[in-house]
Amino acid sequence: MKALYFDGEMKMIDMPAPEADGEAVVRVRMAGVCNTDVEISRGYMGFKGVPGHEFVGVVESAPDPKWVGRRVVGEINIGCGDCPACAAGMQRHCPNREVLGIASRDGAFAEYLRLPLANLREVQASMPDEVAVFTEPVAACFEMLEQAAFAPGEQTAVIGDGKLGLLAAQVLRAAGARVTIIGKHPEKMALASVEFGLDTVPVESARGLRFNTVVECSGKPAGLDLAGEITRPRGRIFLKSTYHGNPSPNTSLWVVNELTVIGSRCGLFPPALDALARGAVRTKPLIGAVFPFNDALDAFDAAMKPGALKILIDFKP
Amino acid sequence: MKALYFDGEMKMIDMPAPEADGEAVVRVRMAGVCNTDVEISRGYMGFKGVPGHEFVGVVESAPDPKWVGRRVVGEINIGCGDCPACAAGMQRHCPNREVLGIASRDGAFAEYLRLPLANLREVQASMPDEVAVFTEPVAACFEMLEQAAFAPGEQTAVIGDGKLGLLAAQVLRAAGARVTIIGKHPEKMALASVEFGLDTVPVESARGLRFNTVVECSGKPAGLDLAGEITRPRGRIFLKSTYHGNPSPNTSLWVVNELTVIGSRCGLFPPALDALARGAVRTKPLIGAVFPFNDALDAFDAAMKPGALKILIDFKP
Repeated sequence: MKALYFDGEMKMIDMPAPEADGEAVVRVRMAGVCNTDVEISRGYMGFKGVPGHEFVGVVESAPDPKWVGRRVVGEINIGCGDCPACAAGMQRHCPNREVLGIASRDGAFAEYLRLPLANLREVQASMPDEVAVFTEPVAACFEMLEQAAFAPGEQTAVIGDGKLGLLAAQVLRAAGARVTIIGKHPEKMALASVEFGLDTVPVESARGLRFNTVVECSGKPAGLDLAGEITRPRGRIFLKSTYHGNPSPNTSLWVVNELTVIGSRCGLFPPALDALARGAVRTKPLIGAVFPFNDALDAFDAAMKPGALKILIDFKP
Repeated sequence: MKALYFDGEMKMIDMPAPEADGEAVVRVRMAGVCNTDVEISRGYMGFKGVPGHEFVGVVESAPDPKWVGRRVVGEINIGCGDCPACAAGMQRHCPNREVLGIASRDGAFAEYLRLPLANLREVQASMPDEVAVFTEPVAACFEMLEQAAFAPGEQTAVIGDGKLGLLAAQVLRAAGARVTIIGKHPEKMALASVEFGLDTVPVESARGLRFNTVVECSGKPAGLDLAGEITRPRGRIFLKSTYHGNPSPNTSLWVVNELTVIGSRCGLFPPALDALARGAVRTKPLIGAVFPFNDALDAFDAAMKPGALKILIDFKP
């Protein structure tokens, strides 16, 4: 099969399709390029192999034949099945986990991938591939709702007007929070306002505001600094961003104001699929471009441009 | 009255005793020197005036005469009484608050101080001054129990074998947590083990351990780094330390492991007084020296020595 492969540089190669080995083999229909993939192409996690973890595809073979032919998305963490984290249903935190296209397991930028049946979630027939492919990042936003309660009307700021910020804002608004996007890209702020009906505040006007909950999605250490300043005493910051190098936040402010900072990563897929199906989270305005798989290297280049919207890779002929 | 006064340098001065102005005036019997006082002497908070916020004293005058003559300790945050934080009983987070000896209000390193009656807590007759003077730092440890639940047997590490760490460890153990002190001063680790019966691990042996809850009391950014490494996925770090300058923690670890970092400051006095009265928290082994008030500058010098135990100032003739 053809695959995008990273071993210090990103290239298109021919390689054997994955063997089932007791798992399902999925023919990829569409994949999304995530900032994590871009980071991997810069050496993040020391990953070598096929990147890609946002996908929708069709089951080609499976230990349970009733799955064959179904259109699916897949949770990306594969636990060992044999540790306390896995026993608690927290494969996402299994110390020995593999992560699709991120750690120890080839991912979705290839014609085929394999995943345990337990990771697959069927996509309802009416949902286009272009929507289903957003399930993974939307699930990562729902993770916040699993970690902590949001009060009705919770005054919430999302720092960052990028793809993740605009998804997080929609997820939290659907959960009943009152959400303001704080950003700095006029075209994305317009998107937030016009397409999604979100309140927006340019970052240079944000310093005097105060919120109970602040979600840091900017990907820049300055976003974490701002979060500390605009979070009310005893409020909380959800940290969705990882950074190049370590940030240097003013943690004295966290202590004096008794802020809670909550690291937040992958979420479960069912609530995300449901929100996408209901239209509570809309994704079409977030698509920057769709590239055919043959041009996947160009897709990567497009995704690496600062401020790029979501780049999708279409595997269908 | 005589007072220790800071205006860029620390000095002993004569100044007028505080006017009641609708509040209680307290004659100080004993005061403790806190690391915050040491920081203030280095310019922290830009404070000018009489420092000191750990004290026990006797009410000299009060708007309600039945308080006169009572021996008291005092909560250190004075809210405006007129904002949402104060309305919620959170004077500690009033944006316009004064803080005894720390912000906008003269403190306890003087013969007299004033505080609103509402801030005073009577000390039971059987409790020595040397014990009551620890109420404020013990209350700051109880604050963690107000912020989040501790399960019975909660696996907890306290990083830092200093005064705050040894108080925090006792408070959490009294609440039912299973506490390990991680430290690096052999004499204090011996204190933790022999005097307080706490499990101890030298910091160089801590990296492989894992805890659900980690309390950072080291006062050093390296303590926050270690906390990130030894906290289990989905675990939490209580941040009691403030630092010289900003630390540079690996926040990617917080995101990947979904850690929660909880800034924690001042607590309410009643549970602290109760724990001191019951002997659930013992303070005598933590006293490094007692200086007469006339030698308060020497007391400050002693408190500034790295690794100093609690330095007390005795105002009684």
